Amino acid sequence: MPTPTAKPANYLRTPNGFLLVLHPGDNVLHELEQLAIREKIPSASFTGFGFVHPTFGFWNAAKKEYDPKAFRDTELASMTGSIAWKDDKPALHVHGVVTDKNFTAYGGHLLALEVGTGSVEITIVVHPRRLTREVDECTGAAVLNL
Amino acid sequence: MPTPTAKPANYLRTPNGFLLVLHPGDNVLHELEQLAIREKIPSASFTGFGFVHPTFGFWNAAKKEYDPKAFRDTELASMTGSIAWKDDKPALHVHGVVTDKNFTAYGGHLLALEVGTGSVEITIVVHPRRLTREVDECTGAAVLNL
Amino acid sequence: MPTPTAKPANYLRTPNGFLLVLHPGDNVLHELEQLAIREKIPSASFTGFGFVHPTFGFWNAAKKEYDPKAFRDTELASMTGSIAWKDDKPALHVHGVVTDKNFTAYGGHLLALEVGTGSVEITIVVHPRRLTREVDECTGAAVLNL
Repeated sequence: MPTPTAKPANYLRTPNGFLLVLHPGDNVLHELEQLAIREKIPSASFTGFGFVHPTFGFWNAAKKEYDPKAFRDTELASMTGSIAWKDDKPALHVHGVVTDKNFTAYGGHLLALEVGTGSVEITIVVHPRRLTREVDECTGAAVLNL
Repeated sequence: MPTPTAKPANYLRTPNGFLLVLHPGDNVLHELEQLAIREKIPSASFTGFGFVHPTFGFWNAAKKEYDPKAFRDTELASMTGSIAWKDDKPALHVHGVVTDKNFTAYGGHLLALEVGTGSVEITIVVHPRRLTREVDECTGAAVLNL
Repeated sequence: MPTPTAKPANYLRTPNGFLLVLHPGDNVLHELEQLAIREKIPSASFTGFGFVHPTFGFWNAAKKEYDPKAFRDTELASMTGSIAWKDDKPALHVHGVVTDKNFTAYGGHLLALEVGTGSVEITIVVHPRRLTREVDECTGAAVLNL
């Protein structure tokens, strides 16, 4: 008997990695983390696009935290990011550009990203070496260790 | 005797797909569709950049159509998209960010894209599985079926 | 005895190319050129993101030169480019989108790019065929020869 909570797979294995397709209401960063855990991705780079409700953050060096800003109902014109690990948990770093109904562009460092009334397609290229990330307390940057 | 209308190939086969280089006046979306047909691409993801005359559309849920806006003489700062099939014809989904002479950025869902006084370079990663796309009548989104 | 000026490698070889991670003060375009020379990259496409001080240029067809504009302390929301060769030297073509503390986006053709208080991650896909680039004197475009 199938598990009642089983969802159809939302990704496809490709020769170099994965193609992930997300749907309205999906938490994009959480889905990427779940994929990293399930498929034991050592490290990866990805690009994507779609329709989203994003929250960006700009690092405030004085306060040592991100100043956040949320947008709704925007096209995700581009998303670029990477997957690594920190304390045995997936550690993402993701930037994006979104556009509104006037075609004006906004963007930056993504703190949160929900799929809006559309979809998000993400193409993931897996690298065979496990990489970790360390947050530089001074700059707030999550830097990949090679 | 060569066919008088024969053009030199505008693409290169790579280990993972294709590198497509387009020239002034080329219809970018049409050239991608022609490549998909000629090379029987089952599905693919691509990124690109160049100099363009773009037309973007933002989905108007009330009218169930795209509100379009055309720009001229813009840098294509980024383009992200995918190739799939619908009714045995190539079905593209393409987003982009363009910038004008003041370096201001605009973008979104691309309805049309012509190469301007420059070029457009597109890097295509082919996936071996044939994918279809279905347009959600409600959201206007062209969603990939996995 | 190790050479006093030896720096730790800032890149990782991947199945399809390289992952390059740059640090504060690094000259991004110079580092890409050095990698192209050291690894004898025939041609390549790349994407990237990070935190930067960029200088963009918009081609002024009347003056036949780029009108430049510099920004400081911006997120590099996306970078897209390619590596080829001209006169036996690496010839890059790079476009980017940056965002400021108000999340407003700017961008275009990158003339210079320095890493700011953060990092820049670049994913490079190598193509096996050596490609050259020629600058079209009229349009200023650096066009790939296939």
